[in-house]
Amino acid sequence: MNLLLISNSTMAGEEYLLWPRPHIQNFLQENSITEVCFVPYAGISLSSEGLEASYDIYAEKVTSVFKMLGAKLVSVHTSDDPKQMIREAQAVVVGGGNTFHLVFQLQSFGLMEVIRERVKKGLPFMGWSAGSNIACPSLMTTNDMPIIEPISFKTLGLIPFQINPHYLDANPTGHGGETREQRINEFLIVNKNTKVVGLREGCLLSVKDGKLKIIGSKSLRVFEYGQEPKEIDPGQDISFLLH
Amino acid sequence: MNLLLISNSTMAGEEYLLWPRPHIQNFLQENSITEVCFVPYAGISLSSEGLEASYDIYAEKVTSVFKMLGAKLVSVHTSDDPKQMIREAQAVVVGGGNTFHLVFQLQSFGLMEVIRERVKKGLPFMGWSAGSNIACPSLMTTNDMPIIEPISFKTLGLIPFQINPHYLDANPTGHGGETREQRINEFLIVNKNTKVVGLREGCLLSVKDGKLKIIGSKSLRVFEYGQEPKEIDPGQDISFLLH
Repeated sequence: MNLLLISNSTMAGEEYLLWPRPHIQNFLQENSITEVCFVPYAGISLSSEGLEASYDIYAEKVTSVFKMLGAKLVSVHTSDDPKQMIREAQAVVVGGGNTFHLVFQLQSFGLMEVIRERVKKGLPFMGWSAGSNIACPSLMTTNDMPIIEPISFKTLGLIPFQINPHYLDANPTGHGGETREQRINEFLIVNKNTKVVGLREGCLLSVKDGKLKIIGSKSLRVFEYGQEPKEIDPGQDISFLLH
Repeated sequence: MNLLLISNSTMAGEEYLLWPRPHIQNFLQENSITEVCFVPYAGISLSSEGLEASYDIYAEKVTSVFKMLGAKLVSVHTSDDPKQMIREAQAVVVGGGNTFHLVFQLQSFGLMEVIRERVKKGLPFMGWSAGSNIACPSLMTTNDMPIIEPISFKTLGLIPFQINPHYLDANPTGHGGETREQRINEFLIVNKNTKVVGLREGCLLSVKDGKLKIIGSKSLRVFEYGQEPKEIDPGQDISFLLH
């Protein structure tokens, strides 16, 4: 498999999809990708004209970035036969937004199976935020609000562990809600055999030739039931998480 | 109906369940409640010895507060027949924690229906955080991580609007994830006819004699599809939300 799993599209105050551009460009070049198939279903709040208009705006934003990086973009929401579009794609790119809405739509259109099958056979897959979450066995470590009920919490299962994107160490000062670490510990209590990776903003995971690497500006935090969390620095081979 | 829906158990740095004690005491006295039936299923991370031990610790913590306020506490998790315990209760008290786990357990034990039926007929109901969330039509405005898949997102539906407990205005500085307001706006996009109330910490909603009031130290933020959010000060009658 060939995966690029990005924590977040954009650092606060920066241009859209700026920080991961060099990594996206490498990914495109290494895999000789000239056109990507984009999945915009997580992006629902970009237009007051309805979901289709919101997807249009989302696809346009991402198109302009990919154009700079030398690749065309087609969006599944523009096709009458999204399954066929996935079957013919050179690469799949899944944008962030609301994970529940993304999963709901992928399940409604029957796209989960098609994407899973092709990516497991080598189709390059890239996602950020919600798009990285769906590479996991389930959506259970998303930060998003459950605004719509999907058919199932199961997602693509491309990797055997869970990612928590936008991983954050602390709450705003004075706020009494659960910290991210407390939330992940709750997940581990009812899912004792699944590891969770806290992927901080400005970081990504790369899966290639059976190897898993952490790339970016911050360390990654690995949570496992009954163990102290581990910090792992960027650049390390963390392929043990794949087994 | 007779409801006390509390945003959060505890202000950062304070003693457990300290700030809402006067309100809880009033509620107990006004309704001549001498014993409450406690639902601990949201509290799963209080012991490493397993869920039952965690519920024990949770029930004990809450028992000691209610004792000070003059009421006994029995916890549903200690009963062989939790439905019967609810049927015989003088009041139901639902503690906070993970909303998905709470809903999963209430559905598994068939308690949703029993609680709904009795509370709609006048049984006093009190909840905080996750416990307030389940008074809404669904769990869709929880802040919690979806660590377990419930049978359905539907909850008690005691009130016709959604509460977002622990409502928070801003993200920690420099963090690029969605703000709470953005998340709620996403909810409204796919649930256009449901209002959402952002209930800040230190605040609660009281439903009594068909009237709804906001009580506490901060204003409440009401979100409605296609409208600017409204701030409503404590002490106001906001019964319009019930219609």
